[in-house]
Amino acid sequence: MDEFTHTPVGYVRCEDKRQDLGPNYFEERKGREAVLEILPEFEAGLQDIEEFSHLYVLFVFHRSTKTSLIGHPPGHGKAHGIFATRSPHRPNGVGLTIVRLIMHEGNKLHVIGADMIDGTPILDIKPYTEGDKIPEAKGGWKGHKD
Amino acid sequence: MDEFTHTPVGYVRCEDKRQDLGPNYFEERKGREAVLEILPEFEAGLQDIEEFSHLYVLFVFHRSTKTSLIGHPPGHGKAHGIFATRSPHRPNGVGLTIVRLIMHEGNKLHVIGADMIDGTPILDIKPYTEGDKIPEAKGGWKGHKD
Repeated sequence: MDEFTHTPVGYVRCEDKRQDLGPNYFEERKGREAVLEILPEFEAGLQDIEEFSHLYVLFVFHRSTKTSLIGHPPGHGKAHGIFATRSPHRPNGVGLTIVRLIMHEGNKLHVIGADMIDGTPILDIKPYTEGDKIPEAKGGWKGHKD
Repeated sequence: MDEFTHTPVGYVRCEDKRQDLGPNYFEERKGREAVLEILPEFEAGLQDIEEFSHLYVLFVFHRSTKTSLIGHPPGHGKAHGIFATRSPHRPNGVGLTIVRLIMHEGNKLHVIGADMIDGTPILDIKPYTEGDKIPEAKGGWKGHKD
């Protein structure tokens, strides 16, 4: 079987050391500040990143201790296939979030909107570009009745 | 050092077996059909995925044979830090693309817009949701002068 080994390019630094998400977590995190601290050997990869207002962060759900093919979106009790949710308990425990870049300072990115806990390993950072805006996209569990 | 091992949950099936991207690749792929073939043991994870019109696909740049901290966006000659580009030659060779879901049929997702080559290993699929629409996001190399 194919196997791919990934190692962190940096870590999330923030005040949030909780492991469990509260019911309002995703609302709370919207305004939260965090620092993406990139390892010194990868700092050169951040050149010009401040040209972008928003970034994708790929990270490891390093505290997730189980895998399930069924997930429960926060605030929505019904179960769905894991690939139809953003649940941490995925076959490959990789998370994806979008942050707003406030400042690039050496090997540190000051951001808003990171929904990860302190110490989360970062696998990659990618720019959010025009092609990622899909106004016609439909779907989601908010507003659904259970 | 932390290490995380990931194994594919499926593979991209399409007619495109090219390794190199042509200059018009990203334009061409917009209308291209592909199948995301999920391994049978993960099929249950696709339940309800057809509720979403668009999906993120996390995949491995399995043909990339080098890593660089400097990348060149397609159609834009100037070099930038790798994290400010979507270049395949990344420290962790994980790609991210958005596809439009046409049909969910058992363990197969028929999609449009996959910019991967045939046989690309898929690590994860996540729904594209309202929170991923960021109309105010700015930045990008298109339109820049070199």
